[in-house]
Amino acid sequence: MNLILLFPEDFYSGREKVRLTGRRLRHVLEVHRAAVGDTLNVGLASGKMGTGAVTRLDLDALEMEVLLDHAPPPPLPVILLLSLPRPKVLKRVLLCAASMGVKRIFLINSWRVEKSFWKSPALEKEKVSEALALGLEQARDTILPQVMLRPLFKPFVEDELPDIVKDSISIVAHPGGAAIFPREVDRPVVLAVGPEGGFIPYELESFKRLGFQMAGLGERVLRVESAVPALLAKLF
Amino acid sequence: MNLILLFPEDFYSGREKVRLTGRRLRHVLEVHRAAVGDTLNVGLASGKMGTGAVTRLDLDALEMEVLLDHAPPPPLPVILLLSLPRPKVLKRVLLCAASMGVKRIFLINSWRVEKSFWKSPALEKEKVSEALALGLEQARDTILPQVMLRPLFKPFVEDELPDIVKDSISIVAHPGGAAIFPREVDRPVVLAVGPEGGFIPYELESFKRLGFQMAGLGERVLRVESAVPALLAKLF
Repeated sequence: MNLILLFPEDFYSGREKVRLTGRRLRHVLEVHRAAVGDTLNVGLASGKMGTGAVTRLDLDALEMEVLLDHAPPPPLPVILLLSLPRPKVLKRVLLCAASMGVKRIFLINSWRVEKSFWKSPALEKEKVSEALALGLEQARDTILPQVMLRPLFKPFVEDELPDIVKDSISIVAHPGGAAIFPREVDRPVVLAVGPEGGFIPYELESFKRLGFQMAGLGERVLRVESAVPALLAKLF
Repeated sequence: MNLILLFPEDFYSGREKVRLTGRRLRHVLEVHRAAVGDTLNVGLASGKMGTGAVTRLDLDALEMEVLLDHAPPPPLPVILLLSLPRPKVLKRVLLCAASMGVKRIFLINSWRVEKSFWKSPALEKEKVSEALALGLEQARDTILPQVMLRPLFKPFVEDELPDIVKDSISIVAHPGGAAIFPREVDRPVVLAVGPEGGFIPYELESFKRLGFQMAGLGERVLRVESAVPALLAKLF
C-alpha cells in the first residue's frame, strides 16, 4: 500500500482528522510499522492526495492529521470490456486495471465464460470495491473505477456498445492474432479482451460490425492477468 | 494449458509415442475433457512443437502419437534481472516471464528484498521448473528459460554483470520515474526490475556505472506481476 485511501466516514473532526481501524490499521501496524510522528501518503477517495501525520497508533486505531493538496495522476483514456475471468483471477485483474489507471470496466459475457462465474461471491460489490481500492493504494491514485456487469452479450453489444465506442478507437485483443498493435494512440480506446480460449467467431463479427479492429500480441497466448497490463502498456 | 509440454522420459516407443500421468493427465481429463481420437497441441521441451493424437485416456494414463513438425515462437531478446519477489508472487512472475518469451532470468538480491525470501521453498528447482513449464504451456513454447539465483548483489553486479550487458541496451525500471521508456528496441535488452519500494540509491548508482539508463512507467507504482508484462510489452 503506497497510499492509504480515505473515505468521508473516516473523518471525525472537520476535514483534517481521520481515525482508521480494520484492514488499513493492520497494514500500517504490520507492514509500514509506522509510529506516532511519521508521515504517510494518503488520498481521499474521488478527491485529492496528500500526507497524513500519525497522531495515534495502537491496536485500536490509527489517527492522522491529513493535508490534501494535490491531484491524483491522470486516468488512462480507455474503457475496458473484459470477458468475466474465473473468480480467483478477477480480483488480480481488477487490482491491476485500477493500478494502471483504467476508470471504466465492463465485465461482459462471452460464449466461453463459464456460467458459474456469474454467481461467484467475487462479483459482490464489496469484493469488487476492495480489489479496486487495493489497486489505487498500490498505484497512488484516488479515483475509483466504475465496474459494470453485463451478463448478456447480445443486448450489451447491440444496444449499449454503439454509444460507448463513439469517437473511440475500438480494439478486440485476440490471442494468437497479428502482432500489429496500435501504439501511443491519440484518441480514447475501447479495448475488448476475450476469455480463455478467446471470443468465438460470432462475437468477433459482432465487434467488427461496430468498427472494432482485431489486434494481438503475437503468437503467444497470455493469461488475462498478463495480457491486460501488456495491452495497456502497448497502447499508452 | 494451450500446449502439453513433453519430456524425453515421456516417450515409450521411439520418437512418436508418449505416455503421461500426474498433472498433465489430470489437466487433460478435467479441463480439456479430451477423448480418444482428439488431437492436442504438444511440444517437446527444448524442441519442436506439433500435435498429439490421443490413443488412450483413462484415470491411469494419457497416451498419444505425436508429430513434431514446427519450431517454437522466437524468444524475446531480453535478459531479466529481477529482485527476488515474495514467494507467492515469484511463481506468477516466472510463469508470466516464461509465457512472454524471456529465456534468461537472474533472481537478484537487493536491500529491500526480505532475507527470508531466499529460504523459501518457492526457489526449489522443482517449483521453479513447474512455474516455467506452466508459462510455456500457456504461451505455446518449448524452450525452458534459465533461472539463476544471485543472492549477493555486489559480486553479481561487479563481477558478472559487466559481461552480461555487453552490446545490450541496459535499463533499470524505477517506479515513479519518468514515463519515457525505450520502445521497439533494435538490440538485446538487459532489464533490471527492483523490489517493492524500489532499488536504493547505492544500487541505482551501481547500475548507472555500468551504463544502465533509468526508465519508468510514470507516476503509478505497479505490482511486479503487472510491471513485468507492462515493461516487456513497451520494449518489444
